[in-house]
Amino acid sequence: MSTITLATYIFTRLKQVGVDTIFGVPGDFNLSFLDYIDEVDGLRWAGNANELNSAYSADGYSRIKGFAALCTTFGVGELSATNGIAGAYAEHVGLIHIVGAPTVSAEENKLLLHHTLANGKFDIFKNMSKHITAKAVTLDDIATAPGIIDDLIRTGYIYKRPVYLAVPSNFSEAQVPASLLNKRIDLALPANDKESEKEFVDEVVEKIINAKNPCILVDACASRHNVKASIEALVKATKFPVYVTPMGKSSFNEDNERFSGVYVGALSKLDVRESLENSDLILSIGGLLSDYNTGAFTYHYHTTNVIEFHSDFCKVKAAVYQGIQMQAALGKILQGLKQAHLNYVPTPIPASVKEYKAVQKVTSGPLTQQFLWSKLSYFLRSGDIVVAETGTSSFGILQAHYPEGVTAISQVLWGSIGYALPAAVGAAFAADDIRDEQRVILFIGDGSLQLTVQAISDACRQHLHPYLFVLNNNGYTIEKMIHGLHAEYNNIQTWDHTKLLELFHDKEKFQNYRVSTVEEMNKLYADKEFNVPSKIRMIELMLDEFDAPKNLIEQAKLSERINSGKN
Amino acid sequence: MSTITLATYIFTRLKQVGVDTIFGVPGDFNLSFLDYIDEVDGLRWAGNANELNSAYSADGYSRIKGFAALCTTFGVGELSATNGIAGAYAEHVGLIHIVGAPTVSAEENKLLLHHTLANGKFDIFKNMSKHITAKAVTLDDIATAPGIIDDLIRTGYIYKRPVYLAVPSNFSEAQVPASLLNKRIDLALPANDKESEKEFVDEVVEKIINAKNPCILVDACASRHNVKASIEALVKATKFPVYVTPMGKSSFNEDNERFSGVYVGALSKLDVRESLENSDLILSIGGLLSDYNTGAFTYHYHTTNVIEFHSDFCKVKAAVYQGIQMQAALGKILQGLKQAHLNYVPTPIPASVKEYKAVQKVTSGPLTQQFLWSKLSYFLRSGDIVVAETGTSSFGILQAHYPEGVTAISQVLWGSIGYALPAAVGAAFAADDIRDEQRVILFIGDGSLQLTVQAISDACRQHLHPYLFVLNNNGYTIEKMIHGLHAEYNNIQTWDHTKLLELFHDKEKFQNYRVSTVEEMNKLYADKEFNVPSKIRMIELMLDEFDAPKNLIEQAKLSERINSGKN
Repeated sequence: MSTITLATYIFTRLKQVGVDTIFGVPGDFNLSFLDYIDEVDGLRWAGNANELNSAYSADGYSRIKGFAALCTTFGVGELSATNGIAGAYAEHVGLIHIVGAPTVSAEENKLLLHHTLANGKFDIFKNMSKHITAKAVTLDDIATAPGIIDDLIRTGYIYKRPVYLAVPSNFSEAQVPASLLNKRIDLALPANDKESEKEFVDEVVEKIINAKNPCILVDACASRHNVKASIEALVKATKFPVYVTPMGKSSFNEDNERFSGVYVGALSKLDVRESLENSDLILSIGGLLSDYNTGAFTYHYHTTNVIEFHSDFCKVKAAVYQGIQMQAALGKILQGLKQAHLNYVPTPIPASVKEYKAVQKVTSGPLTQQFLWSKLSYFLRSGDIVVAETGTSSFGILQAHYPEGVTAISQVLWGSIGYALPAAVGAAFAADDIRDEQRVILFIGDGSLQLTVQAISDACRQHLHPYLFVLNNNGYTIEKMIHGLHAEYNNIQTWDHTKLLELFHDKEKFQNYRVSTVEEMNKLYADKEFNVPSKIRMIELMLDEFDAPKNLIEQAKLSERINSGKN
Repeated sequence: MSTITLATYIFTRLKQVGVDTIFGVPGDFNLSFLDYIDEVDGLRWAGNANELNSAYSADGYSRIKGFAALCTTFGVGELSATNGIAGAYAEHVGLIHIVGAPTVSAEENKLLLHHTLANGKFDIFKNMSKHITAKAVTLDDIATAPGIIDDLIRTGYIYKRPVYLAVPSNFSEAQVPASLLNKRIDLALPANDKESEKEFVDEVVEKIINAKNPCILVDACASRHNVKASIEALVKATKFPVYVTPMGKSSFNEDNERFSGVYVGALSKLDVRESLENSDLILSIGGLLSDYNTGAFTYHYHTTNVIEFHSDFCKVKAAVYQGIQMQAALGKILQGLKQAHLNYVPTPIPASVKEYKAVQKVTSGPLTQQFLWSKLSYFLRSGDIVVAETGTSSFGILQAHYPEGVTAISQVLWGSIGYALPAAVGAAFAADDIRDEQRVILFIGDGSLQLTVQAISDACRQHLHPYLFVLNNNGYTIEKMIHGLHAEYNNIQTWDHTKLLELFHDKEKFQNYRVSTVEEMNKLYADKEFNVPSKIRMIELMLDEFDAPKNLIEQAKLSERINSGKN
């Protein structure tokens, strides 16, 4: 019987589910594991500068490729990644965190090893990870290892959550049957219960047929759980107007004539708010109704006629269909609508959807948030991956119009500052693996940049070419808007951003830009060479410290109320 | 009745136990708390660039000042700090991690807030922290809050472990009686049980009197739990030779005539090993017998006559005196020895202790590890704080002779690469708070530097002046020695280190140096101006990629055996 090492088994399984890059940092308990990356054709080691960046990059990678993997070392390495893993859990991002662990015998003998708490307890870190993963396992028997690994990958992949796998260092070279690899991991969702599904689908189809003033509201999980195509088909069949939430942005094509704007509760543009809230039927798809995604919980529908589609249940008004997954259900609904005659007569979409076009008339003046985000609509093109940091960028970018085929990455729910740069680098790895020259465009503030800046080094190391737009506005503007406008604690050390690419880059081409005016921004966007991602670029955007997107200022006021207990 | 805010209460309590600097990163759930730092005279906000660096800096600060505090925000902030907190737990470092949390009512209503996992569970992060702290509490009642806070500070301070305190954001401004502050927190250790203590002390005194070939072995907890003065008195009374472990280095004055070298089991110098292992009595004080601290568990005494002194128990041969704390017990032993006549006749110390002196004859040639660490003995002076990163630096620095009054910081047990730079910055904050112009001298490799590089920005922000010696040897040399000598995964992106201070520093003076030869090193150390910590300095040490301290090469071989399960 032909055998392979367990490490080769794991890497091959990852390659089979579309993982071409392994993120992580070496450490003495994972070195023997990493030896086998090269055994699998087309797999590469990212070699991040630190573990938190590995986790964030894996998250960004997974949002483009559907799954990701990172590898850290026991204790010190894995704990540095927890914030990123928890974020992937909160935001439904599938990935596997592989931890190189001490040998089974070291654990049995309670050796006082480095990277432990010196208390003989070897399961502490796994137990910590249990809270923030769908499943967490430490291998302890080579015979059962392949089955456990397959189950973990399947779980993470189909439910879009992180999973945790600790591999004792002496298991990397242990042998398992090569033939196990011939049968691929089953990545199909378990089937819905037929009767419940039929009941749900019939109910929804009937409501769709009868609705007079309906709409579709698309949220984050529409992208994460891959129902974008079903939504497009549903809109084609019904002509219902489509709104997106902040986290749902880019889950629906904004060039579609039925695209009706971004709904953020009370923070929405007035016409968007009125038209959505006056609907008599709301099909809410992939909803994640967190404070920053809902204008601080200010959804005020005039109808209770809401149908919710989720990855693990569906709901018609108050009735919950537990276990009914939206992916299959949406397909059945589309079938049910095939011969149906709908009551709905399409109405015009909100006028504010086209507001961004006014920016084309602005030709001079200092660079402002208002100009920046609207103008971005004209730089973007199909295939672009746009990454916006939590804060000024994630609020501001809601103003931009995304052409068809743009993918947005933002961490609105978990909201960890520092996420966006390594996530953009992870997305750049994914684009590079896909090899279709997608551009990766990052917007991040100078405060957030400081948390994870060494991710730029990871991009340089692998010759990736993201656009790094850095908003230079002297600190944590979002925090200033929430509380402490002039407080010392919301300021940061001023960095000379022009030194960043010089520091991290030792060989290839790179370029620095500084933009302070509308004229400079327009000129840069008009430059043909600038539009081609042929080198890594840092574009410093000089903005006033207290200039912030309008919706951020309003959200900040609501957040301050919630945080002070006055809500 | 006069009242103050709970935030003012907490900050005053911290100031009372010697904390002058609060580390951390602002986040919307802790902003209202941070508002009150300025209410307490002499307290300052460090404002770190990220949370892991906050935790490491707090750890470094506590090793100098006895206690430290960091403040992060719920979920995203606190999880980024976990690796640093776990390290403090493993290495007996007292600190408090204060987390700004959502309001009590948000938790009761299970609001789907940002910085949560969107599952309505608000206690997940506290539960994760429970594994790596001595105590973890979320305040939920303002009436009991002051008592809980006092207990947490006391626990962290006297037992030298991290504690965790989550403060709901609406509690920061809640009022508590000001008079509570008049009674200081009791920082005395609970008294030892008198009978057990007497039994233990009598036993030890008798053994000390009868020993013919005894020794004292000083380890990490001697420093952490403040028994350095007792050890000095014990040596004065007995003339016993004193050995230190790697983690015990600087816990005993190396200028003392009874200092006998560094004991690392099989990795010790031969004469050190032979003389210690032939002892008929070993007084082991503050032992933390981890692999890297013991030459991979290669202690081979020829005696079972070992007395262990710990912070929570003591031990004579196999007999454990549970709850007997070494601090008081050592005092009693000193009293018991006052009139005693000892059998011991002092013998010469191992000759290898003076080996470092040979370096003075080396006047030319390329810079080598061998030269570097011995020569350091002549740069150091009383008052210096020397911080060595895990890896080449922590192994190499064992060769250096520390003059009296040098304090060493290294994280040999937890061994998280990236620790040393922010820990050095934390120590520089402590030195600055003490205001006695102590020099802080960091040694770190180019690989480790990359994990936490933004800590340099924190030092620049506060005009601190550490010496940053960076070993440029192209990657993770310690990992290469353990496994994968030429593996791609042990390489790093090459940085232009001369750009670092230019990037982070916008105003004050700074200076870059590059040292490639013995001549350059000697010249630099001889430069009077260089010896004064008047600016922040980066000294790049150009070393061969595969040049490593001898003891590291040997330790690496032993580690490789343990990791592959061949031990």
